[in-house]
Amino acid sequence: MEADTRDELFQQAKSWIEEAGEIIRDKINDPLTIDTKSDAKDLVTQMDKAIEYFFARRIKQEYPSHLLLSEEGYGDEVTSMDGTVWIIDPIDGTMNFVQQKRNFAISIGIFHDGIGEVGLIYNVMDDVLYSAKKNEGAFKNHNKLPNLKAQLSLDKSVLGLNHYWLCENRLVEEKVMQGLVKKVRGTRTYGSAALEFAYVAEGIMDGYLAMSLAPWDVAAGIVIVNEVGGVTSTIEGEQLDMTRKNTVMTCHPAIQHEIIEDYLKEGRK
Amino acid sequence: MEADTRDELFQQAKSWIEEAGEIIRDKINDPLTIDTKSDAKDLVTQMDKAIEYFFARRIKQEYPSHLLLSEEGYGDEVTSMDGTVWIIDPIDGTMNFVQQKRNFAISIGIFHDGIGEVGLIYNVMDDVLYSAKKNEGAFKNHNKLPNLKAQLSLDKSVLGLNHYWLCENRLVEEKVMQGLVKKVRGTRTYGSAALEFAYVAEGIMDGYLAMSLAPWDVAAGIVIVNEVGGVTSTIEGEQLDMTRKNTVMTCHPAIQHEIIEDYLKEGRK
Repeated sequence: MEADTRDELFQQAKSWIEEAGEIIRDKINDPLTIDTKSDAKDLVTQMDKAIEYFFARRIKQEYPSHLLLSEEGYGDEVTSMDGTVWIIDPIDGTMNFVQQKRNFAISIGIFHDGIGEVGLIYNVMDDVLYSAKKNEGAFKNHNKLPNLKAQLSLDKSVLGLNHYWLCENRLVEEKVMQGLVKKVRGTRTYGSAALEFAYVAEGIMDGYLAMSLAPWDVAAGIVIVNEVGGVTSTIEGEQLDMTRKNTVMTCHPAIQHEIIEDYLKEGRK
Repeated sequence: MEADTRDELFQQAKSWIEEAGEIIRDKINDPLTIDTKSDAKDLVTQMDKAIEYFFARRIKQEYPSHLLLSEEGYGDEVTSMDGTVWIIDPIDGTMNFVQQKRNFAISIGIFHDGIGEVGLIYNVMDDVLYSAKKNEGAFKNHNKLPNLKAQLSLDKSVLGLNHYWLCENRLVEEKVMQGLVKKVRGTRTYGSAALEFAYVAEGIMDGYLAMSLAPWDVAAGIVIVNEVGGVTSTIEGEQLDMTRKNTVMTCHPAIQHEIIEDYLKEGRK
């Protein structure tokens, strides 16, 4: 993608995401209709749908040739990453949105022919926008994020992961994951994949692991983490397939190999 | 304690905690000397010590008959809760302080003859003060916190707990704790006991469990949670002994019995 095109899309997405954030903040105390999707913990509200519709309508009008890959049903059937694809989660961290009325984000990634060009993660209630354009660095609001620290060992790392990694699961022996938890300096669970990617980019966490994330949970985060020197892969170190769900690890490059080889592959079922 | 005395102590503590917060914010980007205490994950910095000294000096001068129970060595040997005792953690969430430069708190509880009279938890970087006086309600800055919601079931609850509960441990069978994680709506880990108490008081989490907390981790939180109708006990439902470390659960009263009986006692080693 040409730098001019990338910049135009970035500015447009940024303007829309700020507008959408204002809508959410205005209505944050309105009564919510909460439904569940795949299971009782997979929540969706009318706000998720309204915000996705907000983006879908604008993208279709402004960029009729672009595709939209998104969570709540207003997007396209996307089977390949050819062309320009907007990958959007209108509210990432819906449980936080419902219960906390904060700690959730709007996430927009724009990919072209499979390459991440633009990433925006907007912590709506804190009014903090993490953003990146490919090869132009990442920002937290107007401040450029520094590259991840030069050196890091696993025993000094703080990792984001949810508690299911330590319950019996289909992916990895929980005993091996217990070893990882004991090895690292600390673990955190924030309940928003997009924000956890942003925290890795910011260097306040050194890695984030998830058992199953959709493209809209990770698209913006991949671009932003990449711009500060972080890496994102499946838990086997493979590239993500952006047309479907993946296991995901995003982290400081210094700890990627050790986590994958000594824990995730070691404990793989 | 007389209401006047309580109010005077509250105002004094509030003024000092704000002053200490300003000192921390001024120096947040200064280089840190990081030491470890009981183990490699138990961090302490010169800032923890400086802030504790800040309080110790003022309390000894202003209230020579009061005792100070605190983390970093400037306090008294406190063997009973008779009289007035200030219970202070200068920086709760030191790992967050070191790695994130946010998400930590100053915590001050003031107890008189074993009764929690005043609680203050100051999220320094967000400039958010959670506070309570006994029988006068709890506040987040100037806003009174509402009582916890009228009804709550465990499967709709969000719990704070760290990942060690799901590793082999000396307290509870980890298989039983896996059952609790699967039962609840969600789990979170923030890395600051004081803030997790504050979040329970605010209703953005419904409970918080910890395997071993010192009095300074919980003193302020107990007072604040109590004022919104929450409850705090050991994991066996007993009252905490404020002169030593305890297992701790603070939560919405509607889920206390079920968590203790069906999980914590059920899985007790």
